[in-house]
Amino acid sequence: MNPKELKLLMRRVAAGKIAPDEAAERLRTTDSVNLHFARVDTGRESRCGFPEVIFGARKSPKQIAQIAAAILRRTDRLLVTRASEEAFLAVREIAPEAKYYDVARIVAVRRGRAERARRSMVFIVTAGTSDIPVAEEARVTALMFGVRVETAFDCGVAGLHRLIPLIPTIRKARAIIVIAGMEGALASVVGGLVRRPVIAVPTSVGYGASFGGIAPLLTMMNSCAAGVSVVNIDNGFGAGYLAGMIARA
Amino acid sequence: MNPKELKLLMRRVAAGKIAPDEAAERLRTTDSVNLHFARVDTGRESRCGFPEVIFGARKSPKQIAQIAAAILRRTDRLLVTRASEEAFLAVREIAPEAKYYDVARIVAVRRGRAERARRSMVFIVTAGTSDIPVAEEARVTALMFGVRVETAFDCGVAGLHRLIPLIPTIRKARAIIVIAGMEGALASVVGGLVRRPVIAVPTSVGYGASFGGIAPLLTMMNSCAAGVSVVNIDNGFGAGYLAGMIARA
Amino acid sequence: MNPKELKLLMRRVAAGKIAPDEAAERLRTTDSVNLHFARVDTGRESRCGFPEVIFGARKSPKQIAQIAAAILRRTDRLLVTRASEEAFLAVREIAPEAKYYDVARIVAVRRGRAERARRSMVFIVTAGTSDIPVAEEARVTALMFGVRVETAFDCGVAGLHRLIPLIPTIRKARAIIVIAGMEGALASVVGGLVRRPVIAVPTSVGYGASFGGIAPLLTMMNSCAAGVSVVNIDNGFGAGYLAGMIARA
Amino acid sequence: MNPKELKLLMRRVAAGKIAPDEAAERLRTTDSVNLHFARVDTGRESRCGFPEVIFGARKSPKQIAQIAAAILRRTDRLLVTRASEEAFLAVREIAPEAKYYDVARIVAVRRGRAERARRSMVFIVTAGTSDIPVAEEARVTALMFGVRVETAFDCGVAGLHRLIPLIPTIRKARAIIVIAGMEGALASVVGGLVRRPVIAVPTSVGYGASFGGIAPLLTMMNSCAAGVSVVNIDNGFGAGYLAGMIARA
Amino acid sequence: MNPKELKLLMRRVAAGKIAPDEAAERLRTTDSVNLHFARVDTGRESRCGFPEVIFGARKSPKQIAQIAAAILRRTDRLLVTRASEEAFLAVREIAPEAKYYDVARIVAVRRGRAERARRSMVFIVTAGTSDIPVAEEARVTALMFGVRVETAFDCGVAGLHRLIPLIPTIRKARAIIVIAGMEGALASVVGGLVRRPVIAVPTSVGYGASFGGIAPLLTMMNSCAAGVSVVNIDNGFGAGYLAGMIARA
Amino acid sequence: MNPKELKLLMRRVAAGKIAPDEAAERLRTTDSVNLHFARVDTGRESRCGFPEVIFGARKSPKQIAQIAAAILRRTDRLLVTRASEEAFLAVREIAPEAKYYDVARIVAVRRGRAERARRSMVFIVTAGTSDIPVAEEARVTALMFGVRVETAFDCGVAGLHRLIPLIPTIRKARAIIVIAGMEGALASVVGGLVRRPVIAVPTSVGYGASFGGIAPLLTMMNSCAAGVSVVNIDNGFGAGYLAGMIARA
Amino acid sequence: MNPKELKLLMRRVAAGKIAPDEAAERLRTTDSVNLHFARVDTGRESRCGFPEVIFGARKSPKQIAQIAAAILRRTDRLLVTRASEEAFLAVREIAPEAKYYDVARIVAVRRGRAERARRSMVFIVTAGTSDIPVAEEARVTALMFGVRVETAFDCGVAGLHRLIPLIPTIRKARAIIVIAGMEGALASVVGGLVRRPVIAVPTSVGYGASFGGIAPLLTMMNSCAAGVSVVNIDNGFGAGYLAGMIARA
Amino acid sequence: MNPKELKLLMRRVAAGKIAPDEAAERLRTTDSVNLHFARVDTGRESRCGFPEVIFGARKSPKQIAQIAAAILRRTDRLLVTRASEEAFLAVREIAPEAKYYDVARIVAVRRGRAERARRSMVFIVTAGTSDIPVAEEARVTALMFGVRVETAFDCGVAGLHRLIPLIPTIRKARAIIVIAGMEGALASVVGGLVRRPVIAVPTSVGYGASFGGIAPLLTMMNSCAAGVSVVNIDNGFGAGYLAGMIARA
Repeated sequence: MNPKELKLLMRRVAAGKIAPDEAAERLRTTDSVNLHFARVDTGRESRCGFPEVIFGARKSPKQIAQIAAAILRRTDRLLVTRASEEAFLAVREIAPEAKYYDVARIVAVRRGRAERARRSMVFIVTAGTSDIPVAEEARVTALMFGVRVETAFDCGVAGLHRLIPLIPTIRKARAIIVIAGMEGALASVVGGLVRRPVIAVPTSVGYGASFGGIAPLLTMMNSCAAGVSVVNIDNGFGAGYLAGMIARA
Repeated sequence: MNPKELKLLMRRVAAGKIAPDEAAERLRTTDSVNLHFARVDTGRESRCGFPEVIFGARKSPKQIAQIAAAILRRTDRLLVTRASEEAFLAVREIAPEAKYYDVARIVAVRRGRAERARRSMVFIVTAGTSDIPVAEEARVTALMFGVRVETAFDCGVAGLHRLIPLIPTIRKARAIIVIAGMEGALASVVGGLVRRPVIAVPTSVGYGASFGGIAPLLTMMNSCAAGVSVVNIDNGFGAGYLAGMIARA
Repeated sequence: MNPKELKLLMRRVAAGKIAPDEAAERLRTTDSVNLHFARVDTGRESRCGFPEVIFGARKSPKQIAQIAAAILRRTDRLLVTRASEEAFLAVREIAPEAKYYDVARIVAVRRGRAERARRSMVFIVTAGTSDIPVAEEARVTALMFGVRVETAFDCGVAGLHRLIPLIPTIRKARAIIVIAGMEGALASVVGGLVRRPVIAVPTSVGYGASFGGIAPLLTMMNSCAAGVSVVNIDNGFGAGYLAGMIARA
Repeated sequence: MNPKELKLLMRRVAAGKIAPDEAAERLRTTDSVNLHFARVDTGRESRCGFPEVIFGARKSPKQIAQIAAAILRRTDRLLVTRASEEAFLAVREIAPEAKYYDVARIVAVRRGRAERARRSMVFIVTAGTSDIPVAEEARVTALMFGVRVETAFDCGVAGLHRLIPLIPTIRKARAIIVIAGMEGALASVVGGLVRRPVIAVPTSVGYGASFGGIAPLLTMMNSCAAGVSVVNIDNGFGAGYLAGMIARA
Repeated sequence: MNPKELKLLMRRVAAGKIAPDEAAERLRTTDSVNLHFARVDTGRESRCGFPEVIFGARKSPKQIAQIAAAILRRTDRLLVTRASEEAFLAVREIAPEAKYYDVARIVAVRRGRAERARRSMVFIVTAGTSDIPVAEEARVTALMFGVRVETAFDCGVAGLHRLIPLIPTIRKARAIIVIAGMEGALASVVGGLVRRPVIAVPTSVGYGASFGGIAPLLTMMNSCAAGVSVVNIDNGFGAGYLAGMIARA
Repeated sequence: MNPKELKLLMRRVAAGKIAPDEAAERLRTTDSVNLHFARVDTGRESRCGFPEVIFGARKSPKQIAQIAAAILRRTDRLLVTRASEEAFLAVREIAPEAKYYDVARIVAVRRGRAERARRSMVFIVTAGTSDIPVAEEARVTALMFGVRVETAFDCGVAGLHRLIPLIPTIRKARAIIVIAGMEGALASVVGGLVRRPVIAVPTSVGYGASFGGIAPLLTMMNSCAAGVSVVNIDNGFGAGYLAGMIARA
Repeated sequence: MNPKELKLLMRRVAAGKIAPDEAAERLRTTDSVNLHFARVDTGRESRCGFPEVIFGARKSPKQIAQIAAAILRRTDRLLVTRASEEAFLAVREIAPEAKYYDVARIVAVRRGRAERARRSMVFIVTAGTSDIPVAEEARVTALMFGVRVETAFDCGVAGLHRLIPLIPTIRKARAIIVIAGMEGALASVVGGLVRRPVIAVPTSVGYGASFGGIAPLLTMMNSCAAGVSVVNIDNGFGAGYLAGMIARA
Repeated sequence: MNPKELKLLMRRVAAGKIAPDEAAERLRTTDSVNLHFARVDTGRESRCGFPEVIFGARKSPKQIAQIAAAILRRTDRLLVTRASEEAFLAVREIAPEAKYYDVARIVAVRRGRAERARRSMVFIVTAGTSDIPVAEEARVTALMFGVRVETAFDCGVAGLHRLIPLIPTIRKARAIIVIAGMEGALASVVGGLVRRPVIAVPTSVGYGASFGGIAPLLTMMNSCAAGVSVVNIDNGFGAGYLAGMIARA
């Protein structure tokens, strides 16, 4: 309930149009649906501009489908990340237009009222081939914000010339997502070449002293280029969400 | 053997009712049963107010059943945590009234003399759906102390309004258990709203930089709210035990 | 503002005794005082049963005194932890009855309406001599809750017989605080002997592989005794607060 | 040298207006000034929209002044972070209009052609009083981008009601900076309430298991709220830069 | 494109033999082949003296074969590390002379123009038997540089006399690779006996406090012998590459 | 070759009984057997009082049997740790008297000339039931040194009275092995009660913040009791070896 | 009170020579002296064969002197480790024969009844010059057990020939202490050459990735040589104590 | 004593020119000078091609001078790293030609017979200005091997165009040293552009999540460019030594 709605409620109480006890109750129970195993945050879209996203890991297909149903009752967009194919099949039961992106492991629903395509662009660049699933998660997520997405994969700093011809295009983006495992150096290099926010995603690609993504996480955290911020290891969703949010603005 | 029993023993020695060597022996051998692979602490209930609890992980069903039998010879309550269904079946052989809580992975026995239901209440709140198994372990454990338990799942801080209507109920609890993975912020928020102890349980729910529960553990350890203490990652049992102990007082 | 106050406010709005816009404003601005560099949480005592405590580290004596003044305008108790003597002198300017506990590094004020002395007792035991400052911080804090506090210092597990004669007294406490650095084993030993909550405080006492308190923190976190929970390294305040909260109940 | 300039250079070579060897040389030596101990990146502003920023730590006042002079020869803005007062005095020698922000530890120069004030706003919120120096570093940096900055200090989650009345204002910001030490939970709470990017800055405020900022860093990294990204511990500059970049767009 | 080629291009532009726009384009697109999921760095051999090496982990056999084909179109050598047998079969389809080294998990192709055998020698010594796969990866890689390779396995420092008779041979090498898990002490011992670079490879062999190779990594990093440098855990390829590079010189 | 043998060799060279070149060669090649994949340290028994022990993990049964054969050609004792049943069957082919201890995962051979039983005793105590496999590894190893071994399992500090009656027996041991996972506090308690060396073995038993044995390792490392030293996590072999070495003295 | 004394006490109770209540009391209060800030463990010598040792760090000279006085009332030996010169002067006040070892930072007292010199020997070897203070702490401590101590400093593995001539002497020792910082490899090398226990002491000597002693600690923990156990970083006292205990046997 | 010298010694024994016992003695005592607090490795130069280097940290000026004297008796080169000016003055007493490099903190002596200047070149590149002291340590060390050294400072990847014009020169080097703190990305970028060994030196320059150099260490360890190896944090000496060794070959 936003400030305006709050004032409105107060006025209706003052006008006797709504009983005071009911108003107090309403202040407490709005904007979520209690499925017992989950409290669906149905106010998320009005607060944050995007409905609640279901983190599919460790949830059963049935749980996912129930939460999905609760969300779709209030909105036209649905995103399930880390979703298995079983989860997709369960969601399709209640939302036939659901689509499964297997590389991204995302189930997505976009209905009529979903955001229009915009002209602003998000660019996603990965250091290696193995980072592609994370990039796909970012791409599908960003698309939900109605923005355009362009991608370039396998542009790691050991062969900088693969990156350089892309710079003019990258510079046209409203936000840039850089995805890298191993040493994660790509984020700093890109950050030094552009005037838009760089969202860095460390990945668990690598072995030995990459420690499941700690190495690129620290690299990106300590970037000598300004304008770079970092999301969790392998968190393509978070990067796509943030980029979509920035590009939509 | 508590101080009173010790004085009594001394007096019986002085009165010649018990031989001195036997007294010395008795001082050494009371209060445990040696099964060779385990020394069952049969004095635990008199010392701590609750019989020894069997940590089921890495023990065979047969070992668990043997320990359970030794415990049940002296008390009316039994708790086996991290118990497989096989362990349950083995325990049921020797204690037909045993009950298996599959989400909590607990085998429990409560016989006639077990603690009466009390009016004091423990509240358990989780940040997410995936934290429910830990919550269930806490709930079943706390119930063994004869207290009431209420729960609310999936109230993470990204949607605070899900938590706020629960506050009046939470404030009625004698102890509050907050269970959260990922960033574990819920413990601080709840801690700032109540006047009773908050027992925080970090969980291994999350990925990447949650490092199997280190992230929420540190969050909870550094809580800016006073009155918050922390148990081990995924240790629903420990939280339920402590809450039961506090609420029973 | 608690639920009762909320209902009351609603009724006054409905009754026309208070303008709706003012009510909306009041919902937003109650219960804190904005000093710009600090927003004093003056509603803390009504929510949590104890007024906001000032963490003195990194704050100037002047800042501390200003916050203290704001707190004392609403309550009879004040606690400043990690306080230098300079901070004490600044607070004494505005609260002449302030008292400085130099070992605990605490500034405390207790005025007329402060909580009465209660009969319930908190026991504080340390493993070593160097843990005493942390114990003192816990002791002074717990005293603010009106409980009795007893202490025993230097009872580390390398000489268990120092602990054993204390057990009968420890068992009378409503809550036990165990403070230990180095390997921190004392918490488990005490936890196995009592039926009340054990609040374990790891300290930074030690060297080498104690890593500034990580070793005892992990020890306490993994305690094989149930009923043990842990607060931050050297956090005597947190332990005393929690123990006072439990013992007061 | 951007793609357009590159094409232009090529055409001039083709037209014989510039010798081929000179063109090759120019491709190599443009856009930096070599002071031997530093290679000032004078092309940074054209590439990134903001001139090179001097990281003052470990550099002598004399070195800082020399780099500052090289930068100011090409641009109208200068920022020196982690600057001592000595560094400020040295810079003032060569740029009398330099200004020193002592809490932020920043030396800043803004000359005639610097960016105009814009209407878009950045909001900075801190969890505690001790986080203010980091917030000031962010504020002064963001101001260099010509945006408005509003701030609220000491709104930690242990007293959520201090944050709630600020939400309507925070929601008007183009980018929100959340600065917190200890457990760092504030970022998730704010992230769940807004529709704009949240830039989270962990600080080294805290003790014991906060490990110099690792605890809030992990908390923020694992935020359950989408739209949150993280910069380095105590990196107010990085957050202010990123927020300025987003808000300016 | 190296500096010479760059000057040449400029001259051809100046001479009107090549259109300026085409030159600009060429500067951008040379030296890589875009397979969409990978950008093969076909300029690697001219820059680094060795063609791009395919890191086989997490890539499908089909992807590996496509990249291999792109590489072999420009060069006579191919190396795929961490390659499964399936990957080998896929590569053999497009390069019948491909050979699979199963212990090393390497697919290698050497065609007519590959480097000639040289007289300079690389010596590889392992501390244990379990380190042999890493040693084999190093050996096969170094052979691609046309150098001779000698090996001695299981010469750990607990039985130094196994190492000592090898010293005269080791001293003839141009570069020495020392591979050790557990405590990794062998690198320091060898480093103190030779006048050539020692490339130390920590391995994940060990258990408990070896932490998957962290223990030998730190050991080698802190070697009291000069002339020792370290590559990633289990990175036999990196060591063989570096040794081949040094010995070829 | 020990100093005496060295002098003898020199004298034989001086006496012309052995050619100088042969002497130089002999100095290099004594005391090991090269199986290419392993260099069996056949001088270990003369140097260290016990033949080389085969670490069975990551070695094939065939490799183990070949190394075993080389060792048994020179000595009467053989120990293979971390041995699978397959490894046992392979060793039995070449040494029919080999025995397999399945809980300890050890293959052992003791022939005629093996060390006589001695009167000195090693005591092994574990904190829990799950620590028994590590204890068995220690027991079987120590037995190879001809000493007596007594054991007591599941004597964790949460029930100290289980340990106390054992103290008189423990005090008769020449060396005590304390094996504990979780918080590992038992080592300090035992260390404070005895006058003989305590060898502490942390185990990977536990979960969450025990981090695979780091917690008990740090506990034991920081023991407040003197006379305690530590071996690697789960290293029952190392503890049994060291205890046997001490007790045999 | 040992078992014999316990039986004796029981008999005296049975014989009416001691009142039962007094016996119960005596069981509780023997063997420690309560100085409030310290509980001196006066039973340590009878239990462990050596009186309590004072860890001087963080204790005031006055506290140390008071504890020393309590210890010397019951025994003829006193050891204060990590002692400043001020602590020494305070101890000398109450024990004029006290001696200060400044490199070792130890205050020691040995009176008439102290242990006689024995023939068994402890050998201490360090890897570097900077490890000498730790070695001295070990040496002075071991001397208190009446054993002989020999030392060799700066025998790191980068120059193995410095170690080899010492082997015959080292092999005569009953226990060997190996002290090393940086990579700590010396312990494994020595362990492979002797038949007596090797006590390894990691030191904080080094920089960068030695992490204050973690690197040598891990090295020693993972030693490929059997018979090696480890004490805390810089814990010369612990090593000397353990070696004295073994050599005295 | 190398193999040739060993054979020669054997022949002289055989020829009766040297007594067998003396030969045995000589085998043991050659090649080191025992100053008690240090055993100077005077055989280092013959084994490793460079005399022992004195690590000046934690050694007194007097100790350093004594070791220096022992080394200079056998060779013409001396290097003391981490040397204070006091250490320099002490060394100058015994070696008037000693020179002090204050930025590098090195004392160096080069006498007549020192290695001749060679034509091969080592290139040292740093990411920042604050890395210069480490670079200087590397430079002065490498010069001792008689090679040429070229340097370029402050070429971090946030401004790649500063690096690119240097590439032709860098490619002429026999070995390249890359020195970087913060995120350490420069090593990978350079590694992808050259055909010679890249020695990467992480530095402690940075703050927050750089953790004193761990971040760049991990970055360099995980470099996606082949031919890169890593030395300890801030270990300019080690890099210069290794580069000198490679370039001298």
